[in-house]
Amino acid sequence: MPVVELHLIEGYGEEDKRRLGHALTDAVRFVVPAAPEGVVVMIHEMAPDAYFRGRTTKTPAPALPDPAEVVRRYLAAMEARDLDTARAMQGDGFLMQFPGTGPMTELSDLVAWAAPRYRFVTKTYDGFDAMPGAADAAVVYCYGTLSGEWLDGSAFSGIRFIDRFELVAGRITRQDVWNDMAEVRGRT
Amino acid sequence: MPVVELHLIEGYGEEDKRRLGHALTDAVRFVVPAAPEGVVVMIHEMAPDAYFRGRTTKTPAPALPDPAEVVRRYLAAMEARDLDTARAMQGDGFLMQFPGTGPMTELSDLVAWAAPRYRFVTKTYDGFDAMPGAADAAVVYCYGTLSGEWLDGSAFSGIRFIDRFELVAGRITRQDVWNDMAEVRGRT
Amino acid sequence: MPVVELHLIEGYGEEDKRRLGHALTDAVRFVVPAAPEGVVVMIHEMAPDAYFRGRTTKTPAPALPDPAEVVRRYLAAMEARDLDTARAMQGDGFLMQFPGTGPMTELSDLVAWAAPRYRFVTKTYDGFDAMPGAADAAVVYCYGTLSGEWLDGSAFSGIRFIDRFELVAGRITRQDVWNDMAEVRGRT
Amino acid sequence: MPVVELHLIEGYGEEDKRRLGHALTDAVRFVVPAAPEGVVVMIHEMAPDAYFRGRTTKTPAPALPDPAEVVRRYLAAMEARDLDTARAMQGDGFLMQFPGTGPMTELSDLVAWAAPRYRFVTKTYDGFDAMPGAADAAVVYCYGTLSGEWLDGSAFSGIRFIDRFELVAGRITRQDVWNDMAEVRGRT
Amino acid sequence: MPVVELHLIEGYGEEDKRRLGHALTDAVRFVVPAAPEGVVVMIHEMAPDAYFRGRTTKTPAPALPDPAEVVRRYLAAMEARDLDTARAMQGDGFLMQFPGTGPMTELSDLVAWAAPRYRFVTKTYDGFDAMPGAADAAVVYCYGTLSGEWLDGSAFSGIRFIDRFELVAGRITRQDVWNDMAEVRGRT
Amino acid sequence: MPVVELHLIEGYGEEDKRRLGHALTDAVRFVVPAAPEGVVVMIHEMAPDAYFRGRTTKTPAPALPDPAEVVRRYLAAMEARDLDTARAMQGDGFLMQFPGTGPMTELSDLVAWAAPRYRFVTKTYDGFDAMPGAADAAVVYCYGTLSGEWLDGSAFSGIRFIDRFELVAGRITRQDVWNDMAEVRGRT
Repeated sequence: MPVVELHLIEGYGEEDKRRLGHALTDAVRFVVPAAPEGVVVMIHEMAPDAYFRGRTTKTPAPALPDPAEVVRRYLAAMEARDLDTARAMQGDGFLMQFPGTGPMTELSDLVAWAAPRYRFVTKTYDGFDAMPGAADAAVVYCYGTLSGEWLDGSAFSGIRFIDRFELVAGRITRQDVWNDMAEVRGRT
Repeated sequence: MPVVELHLIEGYGEEDKRRLGHALTDAVRFVVPAAPEGVVVMIHEMAPDAYFRGRTTKTPAPALPDPAEVVRRYLAAMEARDLDTARAMQGDGFLMQFPGTGPMTELSDLVAWAAPRYRFVTKTYDGFDAMPGAADAAVVYCYGTLSGEWLDGSAFSGIRFIDRFELVAGRITRQDVWNDMAEVRGRT
Repeated sequence: MPVVELHLIEGYGEEDKRRLGHALTDAVRFVVPAAPEGVVVMIHEMAPDAYFRGRTTKTPAPALPDPAEVVRRYLAAMEARDLDTARAMQGDGFLMQFPGTGPMTELSDLVAWAAPRYRFVTKTYDGFDAMPGAADAAVVYCYGTLSGEWLDGSAFSGIRFIDRFELVAGRITRQDVWNDMAEVRGRT
Repeated sequence: MPVVELHLIEGYGEEDKRRLGHALTDAVRFVVPAAPEGVVVMIHEMAPDAYFRGRTTKTPAPALPDPAEVVRRYLAAMEARDLDTARAMQGDGFLMQFPGTGPMTELSDLVAWAAPRYRFVTKTYDGFDAMPGAADAAVVYCYGTLSGEWLDGSAFSGIRFIDRFELVAGRITRQDVWNDMAEVRGRT
Repeated sequence: MPVVELHLIEGYGEEDKRRLGHALTDAVRFVVPAAPEGVVVMIHEMAPDAYFRGRTTKTPAPALPDPAEVVRRYLAAMEARDLDTARAMQGDGFLMQFPGTGPMTELSDLVAWAAPRYRFVTKTYDGFDAMPGAADAAVVYCYGTLSGEWLDGSAFSGIRFIDRFELVAGRITRQDVWNDMAEVRGRT
Repeated sequence: MPVVELHLIEGYGEEDKRRLGHALTDAVRFVVPAAPEGVVVMIHEMAPDAYFRGRTTKTPAPALPDPAEVVRRYLAAMEARDLDTARAMQGDGFLMQFPGTGPMTELSDLVAWAAPRYRFVTKTYDGFDAMPGAADAAVVYCYGTLSGEWLDGSAFSGIRFIDRFELVAGRITRQDVWNDMAEVRGRT
């Protein structure tokens, strides 16, 4: 039965409002066990000259991109070995950690790390989880299974993986990767 | 600059409201890049006889527990091998998957799986991420490092892990675990 | 999907709020064909020192009685020939009109009118309709069937009737009565 | 002193809003004896992409017609013996009852009932009362006096009548009629 | 932390809203010692057909002019001895009082009063204070220093003055003037 | 027709709310020429655990005192030559200026200034104007007439005066005084 009213300066688009409507509904249901159809969200939009904080009108910043979408595009670029595109999506202080690596900052290090491990790998996604993180970061998880080819040319598939991303202002600042590759390799 | 008003039937406690205030602030900032101090959340509480949907008053259900807290207690019980306590926190259709296992439903299976792998393991947490999930589920991630003793009595530590949990109505219905144990084991 | 917020100075009871919640839901659905469960009514109550019109706080008047209840009690008093109780429920300028009478103001006139028509009559109600009327009046309709005894001692029943009442400030100011008595009498 | 806020998805016209403003004001004053000028109604209109229930936007249905207007047109069609027009305004399960008849469903039955009673009849209205009824029905009353010609060609006038209508989704599903015709006929 | 919502019928311009936003922020901070950036003002604008008081829509009157601006233009006209322009800005019952005069109603009286005192005078403003006054009046104060020429041709400057104005409906109805001219003159 | 809603954390008293209700009504009418009875102010009070800015609850500071009251008490203390009480009401950086003085900071300087001018003086108030000022200051004006005794023992009365005060956090930081004393003295 909760009712949420969000007051916003006008200028946000239908997709932004859809994301806000969903995020606010979910935020309420995270605490209050109301049925979905019992949660109403109303977005009230004000003209830019009709909102004041500290006697001052404000110019609303453009909406942040959907972080799950950003991650999806980043991983597609990586899979396609389009390192330039991927690099352009990284934010300041970018850092990544994969199984058996320490923290890496360069995609070339990642490529070097992968070289003695597999010829290529592709991801099949079982799910994405995206959420607001601490401070200004958004957090995105994606998980599913890996398939590809070992160095000896034999195929593998169905190897579980999970990636955790942090994004700030729409850019990826951190990626942490876990998977069962060693588990599977160890067995063979 | 967004302002959120949440209308609730009275009866929720200070901690529930704190969680709502945080979740709503974060939900807005997930889409709108406002500074934290630019986001106001006001919770308006109504007497139970002052809210009607379909001409009918509603009795608000008790707040859901904080799912990160539930997970924390579950993992503590598991670490202490207090399987009864852990089992009581599982929901209908509970299912778990660890590196190298298929889906398991019984904690005894998990114990059997661990037996040939290590004597004991303890978790050091680097972080928890909790969020509303699809449908009625909440999703909780925790990650950090494992330490413990291999079967031969030698110690290990600093092995990265991540757990993903789904909770419905405050009970754990799914746990997925990834870690670098095989990676580390494979190296020795 | 409409949401109604009513701001009231506190002091109205649960039954008053229930009547408000129903009347507001019905008012919306009188115009907008929303399903009942799609209409939310929230009553916000303010302390008496927190509402100002023209810089002045207001003392809210006690709620009006449910006019259908008033009419029900009036008709019960009339049926029991408790004229004093009935008369006390009449407002200034009370006026009534029955089949074949002109406007009457005194209950004794009504008794005189009934005397050559029947020995007694009791009402079985099929329904009450109550609504806000023009200006300050509430309007109540009740309809159903009459049973009783003709002057010759023979019984009658199932004779359709309808009464229309106007109430001002909780008191009855007008009663108009129609029924099929003459139709039935004319047939015998 | 009550203040009503109605939140609606935009798309309702000036006349719809006028009817809502009136119905909401009357609904409040049905319970709270505030002077009319003490009741404020504000209708807040949202863009269709700014309202969510259960995470879903809604398409508002067109406003219902004013039921008193529907009844007025129905009675005009009947008086003009334009039975096709009248019949087209009837809803499913239409049923009517007149003095001395049982329930009828066909206008031709009504015409047959009237034939031995009068040559023609016209209505002069003293008032209309319209209100939300139980469930999805609207209820309309109209009352006034009948004039016309008896079968012998003599004129009559000033005979009191009242009609009660039920409408669902803007169509008439029930008509109940009472009047003093038999009372007057019986006298002559 | 206070949040102000103002509901207005649409039609007020950006400058009107700016003045409202400032006046409402200041009004709150006059009583509640909140930091400016802790006070939010949101102006919600309704279509003219979406507001009802006493079942009636209202036509909002044009905004009042900024009274400090009116006073500034009045004083400029006076300084330029453009008496017609100044007179046109006076409201009904205009009245003024200067040091050593009784109440005067005609600008010609003022000119006569000044003649034996100085050749001309110009104002340098240190500040304007404008506020709502009792009843329908606005009150404007301006203060600063006078400079000009005595009758003997010698110059003066730095003489403190303060003027108090009352305005009704944007026109000046009263002016009271104090200054240190006599103090300074007395000394020489 | 404007409606103002003020959301406040609960804890402010009836007198504080009265001052807020008046200040907000006046603020609106300073710009919008609505009749007083057309302006509604509603103060909504939230529990302290139900308001968040930047995810943080806030503790509302106690209301500021009515600055006109502070000034009234200050002037009474001065008139009674209770300099200690007056001094205790002064804020940091207190400064005052009287006709013919430069800026003074010590009440003893004021006494010294007055000594060669009059034996004593009392104020009769014609009015107080109080308003929010720039930044964090409140501004209070009071005006009326002075009476008292000249040094030669002769009485005076009816001499116009006006005082302007600035207050910060309830303490007086500035007083500016104008009057017609020199005008009157010069004449005698």
